[in-house]
Amino acid sequence: MKNNVTVIKVGGAVVEDAAALDGLLSRFVRVEGPKILVHGGGRTATAIASRLGLKTQMIAGRRVTDSDMLEVVTMVYGGLVNKRIVAALEARGECALGITGADCGVIIAHRRPATPVDYGFVGDIDRVDAERLMTILDAGITPVIAPLSFDGHTTLLNTNADTIAASTARALAALCDVTLVYCFEKAGVLTNPDDESTVIPEIHRADFRGLVDAGTISGGMIPKIENALGAVEAGVKRVVITSASSLALDSGTTILP
Amino acid sequence: MKNNVTVIKVGGAVVEDAAALDGLLSRFVRVEGPKILVHGGGRTATAIASRLGLKTQMIAGRRVTDSDMLEVVTMVYGGLVNKRIVAALEARGECALGITGADCGVIIAHRRPATPVDYGFVGDIDRVDAERLMTILDAGITPVIAPLSFDGHTTLLNTNADTIAASTARALAALCDVTLVYCFEKAGVLTNPDDESTVIPEIHRADFRGLVDAGTISGGMIPKIENALGAVEAGVKRVVITSASSLALDSGTTILP
Repeated sequence: MKNNVTVIKVGGAVVEDAAALDGLLSRFVRVEGPKILVHGGGRTATAIASRLGLKTQMIAGRRVTDSDMLEVVTMVYGGLVNKRIVAALEARGECALGITGADCGVIIAHRRPATPVDYGFVGDIDRVDAERLMTILDAGITPVIAPLSFDGHTTLLNTNADTIAASTARALAALCDVTLVYCFEKAGVLTNPDDESTVIPEIHRADFRGLVDAGTISGGMIPKIENALGAVEAGVKRVVITSASSLALDSGTTILP
Repeated sequence: MKNNVTVIKVGGAVVEDAAALDGLLSRFVRVEGPKILVHGGGRTATAIASRLGLKTQMIAGRRVTDSDMLEVVTMVYGGLVNKRIVAALEARGECALGITGADCGVIIAHRRPATPVDYGFVGDIDRVDAERLMTILDAGITPVIAPLSFDGHTTLLNTNADTIAASTARALAALCDVTLVYCFEKAGVLTNPDDESTVIPEIHRADFRGLVDAGTISGGMIPKIENALGAVEAGVKRVVITSASSLALDSGTTILP
């Protein structure tokens, strides 16, 4: 029987709110079957950087990562946030293993070219070692992945958590049925951002441009849905954008090819 | 055939000197058979704490770990130092996995009682999951262990890296032959600290008190050798204290029951 693996990405706003994270993790451990949690942590990184006297520079929503900032994200994503989640999952009886892309070389990337924008130590993913992740899952272990990839030589690279989640789901899709879940503070993609009852149940590739042009999909939701469409087109069985407070897979927005 | 596992502990002074760490890791990967690296990182933690405006308080060589300092050591040990070593080992073709005691619950501890001295979030180890570590080793993976244990509920605890290494070696000794190596900046335990040719080849339990009384063993070397004697008495095949620059197991000080 083909395994069904669920990859759940949880963003910074949830990770960094103790009560929200608590609720999410309690629901996460009830998701059946093998699963992977991918987390962000950008606000904590910005806060720690600021306390260290480092200024955070964002371009088009992406963090510029010089060598000092790489140290900060390595500490914060790979250490503080990751191990806090691991400990909270262990407390709930989950066997959780916190990793970055460098651990067992599971996520190999190359540094993004410095033109047109030099983001510094930011990685674009080349491959995810799905076989290694399946071996970990088969041992009854739940990987908790920090948004750090690895250049295969000596350097960790900062990589967007949505992209880590989508690339992981795509790689696993060659081996099993994969459900990818982006969970965040709203119930799904809304036609009216102020009304949680206006969740769009399905978004197809054919709908995407129109929803962007109409302003229904904007800001950080644009690359998120692009990632999601790329994932289903590459063989991921389904992608669901749903609320972290319910983690309901039947009531959010499902992305279809 | 019984496996022979080598547990190597490398201290802060080596970890935090890029050239020394480089040399050590190049020798480490040539150690035959399954192996585990346990690392420190206290100086980096002190430096980062200071940049964050936190004062480091040491009592009898041990760090007092309040909740702010626990965040720092979680970031620095579990993130910055651990992932830097993992990346450097991966670069050398090793399949390295960076973990803390919380990951898969491998090192369970309890918080040290607050009397006579309240060290805060410092853990005394209750058990190391040797079966889990053997499973990881059997998969061809080299664990890199940060000096953080876990209370089994939600809290990471700061634990001395020498103790982590000794407890890990002792737990594994029930399953296989274990060599425990403490490597540091000198060639071994010296009768004359200024003369590297005066390495004491063997120290037995019967010699220990006399060497302390004579001042030959002093300071941080006292708990290190106590840990080492405890390990060989608990079934670890041999403990060697040797130079990080050679990692030579035949020329350092061997600790015997």
